[in-house]
Amino acid sequence: MHYFERLKVKDALMSTVGQEDVIILGWVRTKRVSKNIAFIEVNDGSTLSNLQLVMEPDNFPVLDEINTGTSIKVVGDLVSSQGGKQAWEVVVKKLEVVGDCPTDYPLQKKRHSMEFLREIAHLRPRTNTYGVLNRFRSKLAYAVHQFYQERGFYYIHTPIITASDCEGAGEMFRITTFDLDKVPMIDGHVDFSQDFFGQETSLTVSGQLEAELLATAIGDVYTFSPTFRAENSNTSRHVAEFWMIEPEMAFCDLEENMKVIEAFLKYLCQYALDNCQEEMEFFNKWVDQSHTRIQTMENIVKSEFGIVSYTEAIKILEKADRKFDFSVEWGIDLQSEHERYLTEDHFKRPMMVIDYPKDIKAFYMRMNEDGKTVRAVDVLVPQVGEIVGGSQREERLDVLIERMKELNMTTEEIEWYLDIRRWGSVPHSGFGMGFERMLMYMSGISNIRDVIPFPRTPGNAKF
Amino acid sequence: MHYFERLKVKDALMSTVGQEDVIILGWVRTKRVSKNIAFIEVNDGSTLSNLQLVMEPDNFPVLDEINTGTSIKVVGDLVSSQGGKQAWEVVVKKLEVVGDCPTDYPLQKKRHSMEFLREIAHLRPRTNTYGVLNRFRSKLAYAVHQFYQERGFYYIHTPIITASDCEGAGEMFRITTFDLDKVPMIDGHVDFSQDFFGQETSLTVSGQLEAELLATAIGDVYTFSPTFRAENSNTSRHVAEFWMIEPEMAFCDLEENMKVIEAFLKYLCQYALDNCQEEMEFFNKWVDQSHTRIQTMENIVKSEFGIVSYTEAIKILEKADRKFDFSVEWGIDLQSEHERYLTEDHFKRPMMVIDYPKDIKAFYMRMNEDGKTVRAVDVLVPQVGEIVGGSQREERLDVLIERMKELNMTTEEIEWYLDIRRWGSVPHSGFGMGFERMLMYMSGISNIRDVIPFPRTPGNAKF
Repeated sequence: MHYFERLKVKDALMSTVGQEDVIILGWVRTKRVSKNIAFIEVNDGSTLSNLQLVMEPDNFPVLDEINTGTSIKVVGDLVSSQGGKQAWEVVVKKLEVVGDCPTDYPLQKKRHSMEFLREIAHLRPRTNTYGVLNRFRSKLAYAVHQFYQERGFYYIHTPIITASDCEGAGEMFRITTFDLDKVPMIDGHVDFSQDFFGQETSLTVSGQLEAELLATAIGDVYTFSPTFRAENSNTSRHVAEFWMIEPEMAFCDLEENMKVIEAFLKYLCQYALDNCQEEMEFFNKWVDQSHTRIQTMENIVKSEFGIVSYTEAIKILEKADRKFDFSVEWGIDLQSEHERYLTEDHFKRPMMVIDYPKDIKAFYMRMNEDGKTVRAVDVLVPQVGEIVGGSQREERLDVLIERMKELNMTTEEIEWYLDIRRWGSVPHSGFGMGFERMLMYMSGISNIRDVIPFPRTPGNAKF
Repeated sequence: MHYFERLKVKDALMSTVGQEDVIILGWVRTKRVSKNIAFIEVNDGSTLSNLQLVMEPDNFPVLDEINTGTSIKVVGDLVSSQGGKQAWEVVVKKLEVVGDCPTDYPLQKKRHSMEFLREIAHLRPRTNTYGVLNRFRSKLAYAVHQFYQERGFYYIHTPIITASDCEGAGEMFRITTFDLDKVPMIDGHVDFSQDFFGQETSLTVSGQLEAELLATAIGDVYTFSPTFRAENSNTSRHVAEFWMIEPEMAFCDLEENMKVIEAFLKYLCQYALDNCQEEMEFFNKWVDQSHTRIQTMENIVKSEFGIVSYTEAIKILEKADRKFDFSVEWGIDLQSEHERYLTEDHFKRPMMVIDYPKDIKAFYMRMNEDGKTVRAVDVLVPQVGEIVGGSQREERLDVLIERMKELNMTTEEIEWYLDIRRWGSVPHSGFGMGFERMLMYMSGISNIRDVIPFPRTPGNAKF
């Protein structure tokens, strides 16, 4: 092979000068052969656009063996394109089949439904849409790291296997090394002391509690890790395994937390506009039916995010000349329709709703002086509703224990979590962003199964 | 709080000019009070060195409330240090306790054993050693991303929950949503059709097979993900949950793969020397008892890695004037003592051992023409032995199926893996690096439990 000597299609298409004897390695997308001239569109996955290969068919009898999907090796001259949409093409000198592709290949040149492509998720990255999505995902993941690393945050790996289930964020997957038909019992209960970890363990639903441990030691940290929910819900917005970004900052209150959130969201949108032009143009043209994807990203960057308290938001919703499916009163969890009304219709910009009723938020959020609301923030954006959720954490040991008692939580299992409030406690805050939800928002893709390479959903753990 | 207005300790210590009214937020490491002057060493976790605060004790009665571990907020002037080892110190104008710290705080100023600190892994990031290790881990993780992103690789997220167990890399953790005392049975077997995914599922031991799917679609890819082994081994080199980096490259043979490996290893070592000077000096002085950690990294960067075939390596070992615990003959799996003899004593440089007997390597490695060896590579470095393992993958469908039959593997469950050999198959190669093993090598830390924040080992899933 000529891995190091090859010219990637992406680089060929962005050339500024011609080159002789370039090597191209890739897969055939289409072939057109006429009497005097043959064209092959080849791609190596480095970019959306194909590179055109040109040759006289008489000199290349191997053309007969080439189909859509065949992998080939080409040597030729990169020259200015004679016609067509691209600036550069390759006049072929040598053409070689690397791996043939029988015509039963499922990805023939035609449009396939996304439902069909989910069935062949092992091949779909070879299509235009999923090629774009995978490259976009990679670039945005890197953008996440750049944002935090450039600001002095430390990337931390919180555990995936956990013995604590107090996050209460939903159903958890159990982990065990027991043979399930021979689970050891003791006194009518499962004897977890014989399991691998000597106790009941699950897949994490959030790295936040552990991130707090590190934030109160080394300052500003962030996770970027898989998280899991065993919810049996087959919606277009739920998968059982997804990636979360969870920053956590010491000496940071809710107002400061909100500034970090706003800066982070704007950074990702600006990053996509600056560094993912090909992808954003693709989304704008082919994915977003209103063709406003780029404009949506620009709006996020330009907007000043608004702030409104939950209590005020409820008043606005109560006064709205709109019939909601879910009725509105103080204490309810805001539904998507409420969130969208606030950000799209009433305020017409991204909104941060703060100070939610304690009863609809997690135990660790900092209690306000009213004793009824907590220092939570949900960030709402047009077209989606909630995109980020965060809070200032309760740093007062006595208040936190009191709250846990109210909720009938035992403190025993998370004494370690309380310990950071015992010794040198500090105000600290953080938030969580579901990476796939953000990718959906940025791309306009409406099903979460399409922004993660191998989605896990009820009944499906294939590939 | 003054999150955005504060001066981080790291930046204070690297100042070039003095500043009035800087705000410092951090934890007290030590306090010394004499009649006329008081010193506090404060740290916010941003760096190893503390910042010295100076004040007249009479003006700061709050000093009485300050202990090791107390969190404080300080306003003062950053000035050239009068004495001492640091260039800058802060003359305190305001001093405020944020969170007090009773004297039962376990991290008093004295040396603690690493065994003790593992018991309080939730607090250990507050110590010098674990502060350094967590910052180092973050920087190196970012270096991994930079290396691949700058070279046009795409970062991919392969699934954590998997239904395939053909990697054969060791015992796997089972995942289920069954209540373990009520597992449904059918015909004497567990009825997995009733489980969340409708089939038996486990935690992944490697993302390689899925990475191959993406490499043969979008070219060069890499994973950086948690992986799991349910091995019941309590050694200093094994944890049940660890992070792996697995690059996979299309149109790439073993020789080219080896060049990427060498470049990657050298990049990480050079990156640490250039960007982690504080950490490398700490490791050199306090962790590595021979004080050669920096030199070891420099040697990797300078060395030209050697290449030797497994067969040749066996001959060298057979001729060695050394008594090995494990006897040497063609066909054995090389033990650490063999690997270290080769790299440390015989070749005296990093070595790549290639073309291993097929019987001691995985089913997917490309068969050599001899029918006995496969295109595997293990990279050996002095002091450690194997640090990276990789291979060219078998891209020939018939040869791969033949090999699977030899091993009594059914092809049914991984038809998807075979499919990429059916349509446009290409030579492709990749390798895996255990991130924690690399961190151990670079830091000189001898127990893997100390380079990951919350280690999972048999009997331990705490925090």
